[in-house]
Amino acid sequence: DENTDSDEPIPPLPDFFVDKTFFLYGDFAAPERRLLQRYVTAFGGALAPYMSEKVTHVVTAQDWDETFEEALDVNPSLSFVRPRWVLACGERLRLVPPQPFAVVPRA
Amino acid sequence: DENTDSDEPIPPLPDFFVDKTFFLYGDFAAPERRLLQRYVTAFGGALAPYMSEKVTHVVTAQDWDETFEEALDVNPSLSFVRPRWVLACGERLRLVPPQPFAVVPRA
Repeated sequence: DENTDSDEPIPPLPDFFVDKTFFLYGDFAAPERRLLQRYVTAFGGALAPYMSEKVTHVVTAQDWDETFEEALDVNPSLSFVRPRWVLACGERLRLVPPQPFAVVPRA
Repeated sequence: DENTDSDEPIPPLPDFFVDKTFFLYGDFAAPERRLLQRYVTAFGGALAPYMSEKVTHVVTAQDWDETFEEALDVNPSLSFVRPRWVLACGERLRLVPPQPFAVVPRA
């Protein structure tokens, strides 16, 4: 009977993004945006539809933006990360150190 | 009497670097190294003579180094910052958000 399979427990999804709120800033190809949204949601993170004080992580594939400085005035612990960080966490199923994936102003 | 001046209180130095331990990594011109050491010490930070688990901030003017990844395995909250961050904190007499001064791998 096919239905007996449904009695088996589903392996729990790790929730290492819990207490984190992500804002996807700038342009993304639609499939990449969708993938990022899936990863954030799957691992317990929240997605913000616009920039706000709740945001803990700004994810962007673009250059450092002057508005990021203003965002830091509001929330000094805000993180600016590359999309690859979100994917790296999802692949390794844990919170990977974000430092190598940080977004910084051009030298 | 010149000595009466000594009764006036010395303005306290802010100690925003307290609980932080700095390791100066790589080459610095001697005056810059000395200035960084003065700023760290003046504002309550500790200087590590070599890399260790106590280090919270690696200060470097060089490129991202592969050994930084290994250091993150030991201490995932380690910060990698440009010397300008230390100086910016000293000039503004407060802990300036370090995000724009982060050291990251070349794209």
